[in-house]
Amino acid sequence: MKKVVTFGEILARLSTKQGERLTQAKQLQLNYGGAEANVAISLAQFSHETSFVSKLPDHALGKGVMHYLKSLNISTAEIQYGGERLGTYYLEVGAGNRGSQVVYDRKYSSFSSLTIEELNYDAIFENAYLLHVTGITPALSANMVEVVEQLFSEAKSRGVLISFDFNYRAKLWSQKQAGTVIKRLLPYVDICSCAELDMIYLLNYPKLPDELGYEEKLRQYYRQLKNDYSNLQWCMSTRRENSSASQNKLTGYLYSDEGLYQSEVYHIDHIIDRVGGGDAFVAGILHGLIHQWEPNAIVSFATAASVLKHTIHGDANLITEAEVINMLSHGNQISR
Amino acid sequence: MKKVVTFGEILARLSTKQGERLTQAKQLQLNYGGAEANVAISLAQFSHETSFVSKLPDHALGKGVMHYLKSLNISTAEIQYGGERLGTYYLEVGAGNRGSQVVYDRKYSSFSSLTIEELNYDAIFENAYLLHVTGITPALSANMVEVVEQLFSEAKSRGVLISFDFNYRAKLWSQKQAGTVIKRLLPYVDICSCAELDMIYLLNYPKLPDELGYEEKLRQYYRQLKNDYSNLQWCMSTRRENSSASQNKLTGYLYSDEGLYQSEVYHIDHIIDRVGGGDAFVAGILHGLIHQWEPNAIVSFATAASVLKHTIHGDANLITEAEVINMLSHGNQISR
Amino acid sequence: MKKVVTFGEILARLSTKQGERLTQAKQLQLNYGGAEANVAISLAQFSHETSFVSKLPDHALGKGVMHYLKSLNISTAEIQYGGERLGTYYLEVGAGNRGSQVVYDRKYSSFSSLTIEELNYDAIFENAYLLHVTGITPALSANMVEVVEQLFSEAKSRGVLISFDFNYRAKLWSQKQAGTVIKRLLPYVDICSCAELDMIYLLNYPKLPDELGYEEKLRQYYRQLKNDYSNLQWCMSTRRENSSASQNKLTGYLYSDEGLYQSEVYHIDHIIDRVGGGDAFVAGILHGLIHQWEPNAIVSFATAASVLKHTIHGDANLITEAEVINMLSHGNQISR
Amino acid sequence: MKKVVTFGEILARLSTKQGERLTQAKQLQLNYGGAEANVAISLAQFSHETSFVSKLPDHALGKGVMHYLKSLNISTAEIQYGGERLGTYYLEVGAGNRGSQVVYDRKYSSFSSLTIEELNYDAIFENAYLLHVTGITPALSANMVEVVEQLFSEAKSRGVLISFDFNYRAKLWSQKQAGTVIKRLLPYVDICSCAELDMIYLLNYPKLPDELGYEEKLRQYYRQLKNDYSNLQWCMSTRRENSSASQNKLTGYLYSDEGLYQSEVYHIDHIIDRVGGGDAFVAGILHGLIHQWEPNAIVSFATAASVLKHTIHGDANLITEAEVINMLSHGNQISR
Amino acid sequence: MKKVVTFGEILARLSTKQGERLTQAKQLQLNYGGAEANVAISLAQFSHETSFVSKLPDHALGKGVMHYLKSLNISTAEIQYGGERLGTYYLEVGAGNRGSQVVYDRKYSSFSSLTIEELNYDAIFENAYLLHVTGITPALSANMVEVVEQLFSEAKSRGVLISFDFNYRAKLWSQKQAGTVIKRLLPYVDICSCAELDMIYLLNYPKLPDELGYEEKLRQYYRQLKNDYSNLQWCMSTRRENSSASQNKLTGYLYSDEGLYQSEVYHIDHIIDRVGGGDAFVAGILHGLIHQWEPNAIVSFATAASVLKHTIHGDANLITEAEVINMLSHGNQISR
Amino acid sequence: MKKVVTFGEILARLSTKQGERLTQAKQLQLNYGGAEANVAISLAQFSHETSFVSKLPDHALGKGVMHYLKSLNISTAEIQYGGERLGTYYLEVGAGNRGSQVVYDRKYSSFSSLTIEELNYDAIFENAYLLHVTGITPALSANMVEVVEQLFSEAKSRGVLISFDFNYRAKLWSQKQAGTVIKRLLPYVDICSCAELDMIYLLNYPKLPDELGYEEKLRQYYRQLKNDYSNLQWCMSTRRENSSASQNKLTGYLYSDEGLYQSEVYHIDHIIDRVGGGDAFVAGILHGLIHQWEPNAIVSFATAASVLKHTIHGDANLITEAEVINMLSHGNQISR
Repeated sequence: MKKVVTFGEILARLSTKQGERLTQAKQLQLNYGGAEANVAISLAQFSHETSFVSKLPDHALGKGVMHYLKSLNISTAEIQYGGERLGTYYLEVGAGNRGSQVVYDRKYSSFSSLTIEELNYDAIFENAYLLHVTGITPALSANMVEVVEQLFSEAKSRGVLISFDFNYRAKLWSQKQAGTVIKRLLPYVDICSCAELDMIYLLNYPKLPDELGYEEKLRQYYRQLKNDYSNLQWCMSTRRENSSASQNKLTGYLYSDEGLYQSEVYHIDHIIDRVGGGDAFVAGILHGLIHQWEPNAIVSFATAASVLKHTIHGDANLITEAEVINMLSHGNQISR
Repeated sequence: MKKVVTFGEILARLSTKQGERLTQAKQLQLNYGGAEANVAISLAQFSHETSFVSKLPDHALGKGVMHYLKSLNISTAEIQYGGERLGTYYLEVGAGNRGSQVVYDRKYSSFSSLTIEELNYDAIFENAYLLHVTGITPALSANMVEVVEQLFSEAKSRGVLISFDFNYRAKLWSQKQAGTVIKRLLPYVDICSCAELDMIYLLNYPKLPDELGYEEKLRQYYRQLKNDYSNLQWCMSTRRENSSASQNKLTGYLYSDEGLYQSEVYHIDHIIDRVGGGDAFVAGILHGLIHQWEPNAIVSFATAASVLKHTIHGDANLITEAEVINMLSHGNQISR
Repeated sequence: MKKVVTFGEILARLSTKQGERLTQAKQLQLNYGGAEANVAISLAQFSHETSFVSKLPDHALGKGVMHYLKSLNISTAEIQYGGERLGTYYLEVGAGNRGSQVVYDRKYSSFSSLTIEELNYDAIFENAYLLHVTGITPALSANMVEVVEQLFSEAKSRGVLISFDFNYRAKLWSQKQAGTVIKRLLPYVDICSCAELDMIYLLNYPKLPDELGYEEKLRQYYRQLKNDYSNLQWCMSTRRENSSASQNKLTGYLYSDEGLYQSEVYHIDHIIDRVGGGDAFVAGILHGLIHQWEPNAIVSFATAASVLKHTIHGDANLITEAEVINMLSHGNQISR
Repeated sequence: MKKVVTFGEILARLSTKQGERLTQAKQLQLNYGGAEANVAISLAQFSHETSFVSKLPDHALGKGVMHYLKSLNISTAEIQYGGERLGTYYLEVGAGNRGSQVVYDRKYSSFSSLTIEELNYDAIFENAYLLHVTGITPALSANMVEVVEQLFSEAKSRGVLISFDFNYRAKLWSQKQAGTVIKRLLPYVDICSCAELDMIYLLNYPKLPDELGYEEKLRQYYRQLKNDYSNLQWCMSTRRENSSASQNKLTGYLYSDEGLYQSEVYHIDHIIDRVGGGDAFVAGILHGLIHQWEPNAIVSFATAASVLKHTIHGDANLITEAEVINMLSHGNQISR
Repeated sequence: MKKVVTFGEILARLSTKQGERLTQAKQLQLNYGGAEANVAISLAQFSHETSFVSKLPDHALGKGVMHYLKSLNISTAEIQYGGERLGTYYLEVGAGNRGSQVVYDRKYSSFSSLTIEELNYDAIFENAYLLHVTGITPALSANMVEVVEQLFSEAKSRGVLISFDFNYRAKLWSQKQAGTVIKRLLPYVDICSCAELDMIYLLNYPKLPDELGYEEKLRQYYRQLKNDYSNLQWCMSTRRENSSASQNKLTGYLYSDEGLYQSEVYHIDHIIDRVGGGDAFVAGILHGLIHQWEPNAIVSFATAASVLKHTIHGDANLITEAEVINMLSHGNQISR
Repeated sequence: MKKVVTFGEILARLSTKQGERLTQAKQLQLNYGGAEANVAISLAQFSHETSFVSKLPDHALGKGVMHYLKSLNISTAEIQYGGERLGTYYLEVGAGNRGSQVVYDRKYSSFSSLTIEELNYDAIFENAYLLHVTGITPALSANMVEVVEQLFSEAKSRGVLISFDFNYRAKLWSQKQAGTVIKRLLPYVDICSCAELDMIYLLNYPKLPDELGYEEKLRQYYRQLKNDYSNLQWCMSTRRENSSASQNKLTGYLYSDEGLYQSEVYHIDHIIDRVGGGDAFVAGILHGLIHQWEPNAIVSFATAASVLKHTIHGDANLITEAEVINMLSHGNQISR
């Protein structure tokens, strides 16, 4: 099977125990994660050949990332060593009525120092079917915008499909900056993850009246998006309704020319870790698209995959295809 | 007071932390448990004299089991050392929408090597009132079917009541094998734990129409069972409705010639450990029957006991009679 | 800003992991807490200057308490060393349908040996605006009743406002003893935390008919209380409805001559630690009263503060004013 | 075989992790231990029937002690529930050049409230061969001196051997108080553990010149002691030379009319826990005396047992006779 | 570079914390290890391409092993899934004067069910330079003797060098059984790890007089061995002198036609984990031989590598070539 | 008493468990430390009033540092919030023959962004007796050299004594850069910590012949240093001889016009944490100098303090004056 390539930054995540404030913590859990690495890992669990392209510092933590990726069957052949540091973030894990808090410490990272010249496009895209990048990557620096656009251009010229997740982070750039860059990148994109707020605040689409209902609004936004970017084939998003940091409702949506498909509404209780839930959804969609399943099956699979992610500590969705399918067929049934 | 005897295998259980996959685990929690040992322990907490009859390997883990049982006031006088290994199982603890998973590693255990000749029936049944065994025990080997039948026969001849829990495990034997053996054992049984699916798939009773309602179906199945096995005095079961691995609803049922008694429906949220919940229910029923309480009181007590089990890590229901009664009188009231 | 003074005992709390029974525990979590210290800490988090007045044994645990208080910006200048021991309590943390259990080991503590002569009232009340004490303090000994009354009298004579939380603990004194003492102290009190059961069982007010509804009853009780103690300006309480040890509903009430104000009803799920929830509410009310907010704003703030306390391990509400306000404006919204 | 009876207090021990100061600790290890309980446990590991006589509070910690003793095969039939609290001590574990520190919190314990009338002497001494008590017990209160003397008298009248370990603790009583009481008790004693400093400072024997050498001095002190207390048959002690909290040298001594026997000098490195090392030695001596081994064999066994104790966390020497003998025959040889 | 192939069983190792007895343990550390896997991992750390050939059960633990090997850059292409269980051993970690104890639970493992037919020799030896196996592998079953001999024969026919470590384990087979099999295998072997006791008790060489000195005896034994097995080019061993479980002395030896080479004597204190120390030595020797270093340099490197292994928890020597060389040049120098 | 001021950076330290490699770590211990903060903390433990001057990011980790310093009684009044990040370092804790390894991640820290204008010299030096800074601070940036020189100048003009520890770190600057800066700063310095290698490689003093012996060489170097910098009154250093990462020998030296004073040679075994050992020595010297003790007493105290530091996890020497004196009088004697 042809491989999937993802490109982005992977961070060290240092998280507290639930119920503990970061100011008081004496012990932190160390995990590694990043939106594009998470998608690669989830796809590798679904048996895809995947390659993660990135840059890491040449020290013990950089090597720790390599061990982590290799253990999960990700090709690290196109990861290079160099630069100064591994981007880091501190996660104060929320509970019940208190949400999680993040302290970013990711500036000056090895990845953000990566240049266009350092990438070996032929090796990266050899036997590749699809490239996935998120909006976090171009948000890191002006240089990284160039890198991503060049990468998209190289992918395009080799016939590799391009998947892009807006993944807007207010801590990294303004809505205006993000909108400008994303509009520049969208002409390359075949598969896109974005939702209502992205369309309004990043792409400046007019806000549709709430009376239309959530689904109809989404349908109209996506229709407009596809009109504006003729290249685009698939749009996707999830709708998360939070009753607390420990309980959410989740619905998945997938849009193509044939219409808007939606999953059942999942009630997620007793959340272990919601970081990476969106990446798990994207990976589920890409898995279905690659296998050319029916849209309804795809969106169900992807949403169930995302729901299962919430039960696992760390950013990555360590769930196999069989486990997702088992959940779809048995609901929340528990077996022993 | 006369003692209660239970006979079966006790396993080492190696479990992950919640939110962690077994494939990634670096640290495991070690507990000891087994259906019949769990019933003995719960009854000992309710102040019964209890004896657990089994066979253990003569090494540090076998001794660890002995320490565990003794600490909880179980007589270990009829446990013998011998054989090759302690049966083991790995428990990946589920969370929210992902159920727990079990990897069994229990073949070739010391217990499964136990023979009829190794049991000292006079010592085992001295001053005994009741013997409890579950379907897991005869499922372990053809030899163990002989051992259990001989044990039932010896109990019967000494006037000891026999309690049997079907406890069907598809990983140990087929429905057909189980049905054949259970039908051979039921003529000895006075008190029996089994539910609708057992009746249909193990005893091959015709499936009753759902329109009858859950309770009416259960009433008819139990009536039929008592007709078929005239020795049988009491039947029991619980009905568990799962909304997730962390939230369940639980109802208990007890049946005698006088009819079907049922508990209130308990909502169990924030489950710590559901392993052993069924054994806690059985122990609660046996406790009430030994004390000759009213059936309604018995089924309420047993269901509340089972609900409380879900709040305790490990297989055993480390709950006293006073705590169950306190819960019954205060509902889920919490005091400090 | 003028300082807030609280006076009381601080205990070592040794707690189990959730799901573990105290009889089996091999490892205990050590925290420090006490009703009055908790209020001081919460107010310090809200940027008040606070002083905690107490007595501690002169050994490593006493020093541990000092480190703890200092780290949270509490003035310890009026804490003295002396006496025999640090009061202790063992907390078996409940879960789901099993409530937490407390084993008190607080007799003969250094604090309970404190005498009237040991307090330096001028230093204690220098630049003070408000004194807060709870009913736990006079419950510790007959001597402590004298100490508290003398302290109230000294506060009064210096124009310091007095806040008193009934905080009745059946393990410390009888309803009759508590009632006698509280009636003696109430004439000094300006701000009072007590609820329906306190009024009926401690102050022997006639029980009002349930048909009046919870709020109307509370309004009438408080009106009566203010009639009886003309000094009293504000009364407060929370109503907690438990569906389990892990899920509660919480409503806050604040009463003045202008009527009864109430917060929205909060659903608290996935409780990490409810110890100190009441103290967090009191601190929230005092914070609002000191800032002379509108009563509606005060009771909303205090109830939200108490809800957030349930998400933090330990007795203390390590939550800033900004975090409470953020919760009030975003509901349970979670941001990353 | 006849049973060994020990009488004394058992405490909750709350200890830090190595390298952590008690003032900073957030988590403590909970163990149970006491000199006489430790001796009983070690003898039970050597396959003796043992009974520990004591008094415990009737709450979860008291029950925790019972579980602990039962798990290790100690008879708890003569332990009663009552009194206010379980004596406690905090242990800051030393390391390298910093010794361990203890904070006692044992006053007002259930055990110290025990009275002469509460003991059932016939049951205690039924089938007993030997009674062991240490100087800690009479140090607890004047009342406890009476209890111990009465117990010794009852033992004597039933032909039970009496073993007494001076175990002087300056935190519990003065040298003068200890000397007075010990002189009162020694006429009952058959087997006695005490060393040079005890003889000089508690019994006021004249200090012998160092030129005699350690062994000769010990020989003369013991000869004098046996002269003074004609009942006495055996004296014992260990000599510990500390190079650090983690490295010690240990030699054991046993004295009878036939002379002074001494073990080889053991180098103990990498000490895990030296608490209970003396109790392990006493248990080793008693084990050998009961089996009427040769004195040389006894003192070697006891010293090796004590050395092995230093490798185990907690107060108790969880080491079998076979393991001690294995160490004696293989030195520090390690097998895998 | 050509690859190194190792063939053998990898086990789950469940170990206690230091200072804790296995009978009391509630938590175990999970690692994976096996002599041949350890050698492969150490060589991979030294930048060799390595392939580990084995058989694993197709469940979560089997997958855990795969993750582990992949993370460390071992090729798992020739590992197959099948059979019943993963061999296991329980390790009670020793300390100071108490050695570690092992409880084996490795019978009936997936690996021991592997048959000659299941191995794809062409794939296994493609581009291979050296095969390493230890005596543990043929000790597992008579069938495994056949498998190993066939594998050796296939290696030989392809010009692959064969390295064999006697690794005698008395718990797996008798000296006589081992001797018979090893004599059958030695004609294939080019590089051999064995020491004095192996020569005497397995190969039945006459015991040489101690007066010759350790090195001279070793020299003569190895000379004889090379005479008997003309294929043999290199012999190696370490000499370990234990002062305790925490302190050892270690010397390494390497023998060829040109004589016996020996390392300096290393003092190893504060041992973290000595399991795998021998495998680390073998890997060091193989590394040097492959690079055709001078014998003196090889034995120094290998012994230093083994010394460093003792500082790392788990079976595997996670140490790079640069780190070994750094130790050789700086002694025990510590840098920060 | 007048206060001691220290100025420098405090870092988050994330350290592994002993025996674990950083590449494999899943959990890290979080401590805070920095050379100048460590000196302040040790002096505060010795009952000095101390102020730490620094700059921290305004987020949860910055606040965590504040909590830490306040808990240990350090004045934080002159610490300001600002800048981007908290400097971090990862510590792979060594063991036995493997030294600790550090991965620095401290560039772009809040502290390194501090400017001369941001310091309020009058407030910093109000009532100050002594200022302590180490060579790490000017090593951070060219700007920081200016800041330190200005600070020294301001201290000098206010009659505040200046203590300076060379503390050369090759990872931060070259020997040449360090030498240039240190020569610029030394004219201000009254008390100086430096050793032989500093004199040779940073100050370019001619290397003295080894035959002179360590002490005589040190004496001559210090004499020369005092000649070159007439302001200088006291020089100090320690000599550390490592037999392994777990065992060291330590000797302390103090030099004044009256000659070279040296401590006894301490054997440090079972090292828990050697980070901060040098800072503990400096704090001990400063403590003695402030109290105007005899030089022999000062160097003994300081060396013993440093030895005790090695027994405590974390950078800070949480040891009181009484504990150091106790060690000096009892050697390594351990009491219980």
